[in-house]
Amino acid sequence: MTRVSSASLELAAIAGLVGGTLRGDGARRIGGVAPLDRATADDLAFVASSRYLAAMEGSGAGALLIAPDLADAPGGPADRVVVARPHEAILRVLGALTPPPSPPFRGTHPSASVAPDAVVAPDACVEAFAVVGAGAQVGAGAWVGPGCHVGARSIVGAGTHLVSQVTLYADCAVGARGLIHAGTRIGSDGFGFVSDATGHHKIPHVGRVVIGDDVECGANCTIDRGSIDDTVIGDGTKLDNLVHIGHNVRVGRRCLMAAGVVIAGSARLEDDVRVAGQAAIGGHLTIGRGATITAKAGVLKDVPAGATWSGFPARPHREELRRQGAAAKLPAVLRRLDGGGAPDGSAG
Amino acid sequence: MTRVSSASLELAAIAGLVGGTLRGDGARRIGGVAPLDRATADDLAFVASSRYLAAMEGSGAGALLIAPDLADAPGGPADRVVVARPHEAILRVLGALTPPPSPPFRGTHPSASVAPDAVVAPDACVEAFAVVGAGAQVGAGAWVGPGCHVGARSIVGAGTHLVSQVTLYADCAVGARGLIHAGTRIGSDGFGFVSDATGHHKIPHVGRVVIGDDVECGANCTIDRGSIDDTVIGDGTKLDNLVHIGHNVRVGRRCLMAAGVVIAGSARLEDDVRVAGQAAIGGHLTIGRGATITAKAGVLKDVPAGATWSGFPARPHREELRRQGAAAKLPAVLRRLDGGGAPDGSAG
Amino acid sequence: MTRVSSASLELAAIAGLVGGTLRGDGARRIGGVAPLDRATADDLAFVASSRYLAAMEGSGAGALLIAPDLADAPGGPADRVVVARPHEAILRVLGALTPPPSPPFRGTHPSASVAPDAVVAPDACVEAFAVVGAGAQVGAGAWVGPGCHVGARSIVGAGTHLVSQVTLYADCAVGARGLIHAGTRIGSDGFGFVSDATGHHKIPHVGRVVIGDDVECGANCTIDRGSIDDTVIGDGTKLDNLVHIGHNVRVGRRCLMAAGVVIAGSARLEDDVRVAGQAAIGGHLTIGRGATITAKAGVLKDVPAGATWSGFPARPHREELRRQGAAAKLPAVLRRLDGGGAPDGSAG
Repeated sequence: MTRVSSASLELAAIAGLVGGTLRGDGARRIGGVAPLDRATADDLAFVASSRYLAAMEGSGAGALLIAPDLADAPGGPADRVVVARPHEAILRVLGALTPPPSPPFRGTHPSASVAPDAVVAPDACVEAFAVVGAGAQVGAGAWVGPGCHVGARSIVGAGTHLVSQVTLYADCAVGARGLIHAGTRIGSDGFGFVSDATGHHKIPHVGRVVIGDDVECGANCTIDRGSIDDTVIGDGTKLDNLVHIGHNVRVGRRCLMAAGVVIAGSARLEDDVRVAGQAAIGGHLTIGRGATITAKAGVLKDVPAGATWSGFPARPHREELRRQGAAAKLPAVLRRLDGGGAPDGSAG
Repeated sequence: MTRVSSASLELAAIAGLVGGTLRGDGARRIGGVAPLDRATADDLAFVASSRYLAAMEGSGAGALLIAPDLADAPGGPADRVVVARPHEAILRVLGALTPPPSPPFRGTHPSASVAPDAVVAPDACVEAFAVVGAGAQVGAGAWVGPGCHVGARSIVGAGTHLVSQVTLYADCAVGARGLIHAGTRIGSDGFGFVSDATGHHKIPHVGRVVIGDDVECGANCTIDRGSIDDTVIGDGTKLDNLVHIGHNVRVGRRCLMAAGVVIAGSARLEDDVRVAGQAAIGGHLTIGRGATITAKAGVLKDVPAGATWSGFPARPHREELRRQGAAAKLPAVLRRLDGGGAPDGSAG
Repeated sequence: MTRVSSASLELAAIAGLVGGTLRGDGARRIGGVAPLDRATADDLAFVASSRYLAAMEGSGAGALLIAPDLADAPGGPADRVVVARPHEAILRVLGALTPPPSPPFRGTHPSASVAPDAVVAPDACVEAFAVVGAGAQVGAGAWVGPGCHVGARSIVGAGTHLVSQVTLYADCAVGARGLIHAGTRIGSDGFGFVSDATGHHKIPHVGRVVIGDDVECGANCTIDRGSIDDTVIGDGTKLDNLVHIGHNVRVGRRCLMAAGVVIAGSARLEDDVRVAGQAAIGGHLTIGRGATITAKAGVLKDVPAGATWSGFPARPHREELRRQGAAAKLPAVLRRLDGGGAPDGSAG
């Protein structure tokens, strides 16, 4: 692993951070986190299961997070923090040791194309081959990665990072502290046509996309602009890769959507909704606050707040599990019935 | 909403356009369309339901499209056009008021990389960091957005707009008046290999992608080139975002495909086929003229013209609905059967 | 078809290559492969079915691959190779006639942005508007297409081609002889958060993506980097378009994944696994060596080596077929039961 972190912590501080028990040298400095087989003396590794004891014995790690039942295992690094669920605890250490990535420079790369009337904060970074359109704004500490396009009159909030080749169409806005991964498209036209005998005639899309603060979008997502009103993504919402958000959709705060999710036009997701991988929400539906949609579900009705829905067409998860259980028994039941016997399989 | 439109219409003309009844000042000029809460005196807003009467009262809109049962509602703008289904009527107004987007300039941006033997029409626009390959053609009034790549010998038809970071591989063609949204890839190799004990050996793809006139592709779509013959998309077809079209596929005219659709290699879609979100069509199948494939369906057989198919594996929609209805009843039926009783649930 | 190939073969050599029987002039030189309706005297076409005899008669092809039962059909090109399954045989000819695409030049385009300490092999090609970051390596004969970004310290292996607008994030590696199609993103952060009452807090991703030799990725794929450990793709694996690979996933050698597949975080695919279109694999699961996952399946359990699994939730394919067959009969069975009659539908 190439070292990405630059901070360091004493092992005693790490024990405090994770609520664990220190064994060995609390003054040992740890600069990074690595798997057992690649860790060096500067690194912390973790051992959560006895399956990894052999790797532990040969590891060059400086110290370990280790599960209580393995705390006394011989061999390997002697400086240890004993903690339940070390595979989760290590993520807290990682967060503390890893500074957020920072731009390679402040200012505008000479190759970038920035409109004369765009407003770029002095401490922002605009990388090579980026395009910033007329009247656009790039906020304090924002970072427009190589090849990103910020459309006319669009706004990149303070501290927000467009990683690489992101397209922000005209008249769109991303709030503060956002992270938009490579290839995501924000503000494409919605899929709206008026059809008649001569074909499909485009409905102009003059709404915007408005994205709140602390939003992360994965790579190669697509978020369509509204037709008249806006498409809105609330504060703190996180999208995985290859997610599609249709026109006029309203996504609340702190929602989570996993890879491959499709949200059709004009759907409304209230706060804290979770949508698992490859699930889809039909147009104009409302998904209530805190609801969960499981993987591959296809939602064709409104979902009440707090509910978990599954399957296609989606229904309450317990009901879907009963349906699946019954379907699994069905072939045997039909064989009994086809036997011409009574339902209990007797010759009747 | 940032004003995008630049035309304007008198309210009397708007009444004529939507077939509604004018109340108030027919000479009032309207320059745009906006939601009630953001509309200004220059804007038309609409009220389709009594839920919006409070917003109407506080609205600064210059005029309204309003449903017949609400036509006399007090407060809010007095200049009104009474029309059934105002939320649909307003789209016609929007179309009339909104000129299609136009390029920021005519000619080639100094940063673009255009091969010496490429032919770019004098009134075309080639934006910053675009690449136009050897022998490529960019037609009259075409618009190659920032960072788009037009491969060697490829053709961008008259009036066609590649929005941003579109890749048109070598030897492909897009017809006239097309709109290809950001990040779409046209002409990637199909997924074809000859496999043996040593691995998977690539089948060269020397066919092209040929796209007709008046085609719109959403953002981040992928359209593979043919292996020997071409992949073809017919005139007037519209694709939403994140749609995949496999190698050698033939799509007819005026087809519609919603977000996340996958069309496997060598499938043939006749004219006027509609495929809803996340549906998939298997390889080498034919979908007959005017057929509809519903959301998330997976088609494993040919579909007759005019039919609507659903589910997985897809079947006629009514049959699928019966199947779903039966499946929903199944847990209760099995409980009855397991009760050892007669099928009607009695103790028998 | 625009001629892409530049090699040529005598017809007798082609007969040997495909194991067919020569009729006519074995010394005829063939330079390319084309469909019957576009082939010229320099081209080989094929006739696999009597449906194509009319097209054959009018074809300008120099020679044909033709099925045994059609070998004596009159009209059309007289120089023929008689071979079973000519539509498959022609792919071998195509492979022999089509040289792999080669870069337009050797060296670095003057517009590219290459860090001073990046190491680019003298015979590599770095095209217009490409960005090669600090400490990155571009191997012998590698080809970095227009607008591609190679992150800091990342490695592009010898002979590997990043086609157009590919993003390779920092600290990632692609092996030798790879082909990464347009718009694919390698090394984006995984979808990992620690959630509490204040929201979702990002887990840093300091692992890498490590891709083996002879790997092909389709267009607009996304491959996330590992959180601590790496995401790994084995030698000879091929991905179609719009495939998502989550963080920490381990994909073995010679796997095949069709368009729209989603592999959730920490899943492990052993060698020679095949995943059909729009299927998904849940997180932390193991798919055994040589297993097949059919189209649209959703896998929620480990799959044994060599097995074929289908449906949602996925189960062994035969079991799923029985389940589907039973479900198709269910509406009729329920009608019988609801009739109050005996299970055989009699009045009982």
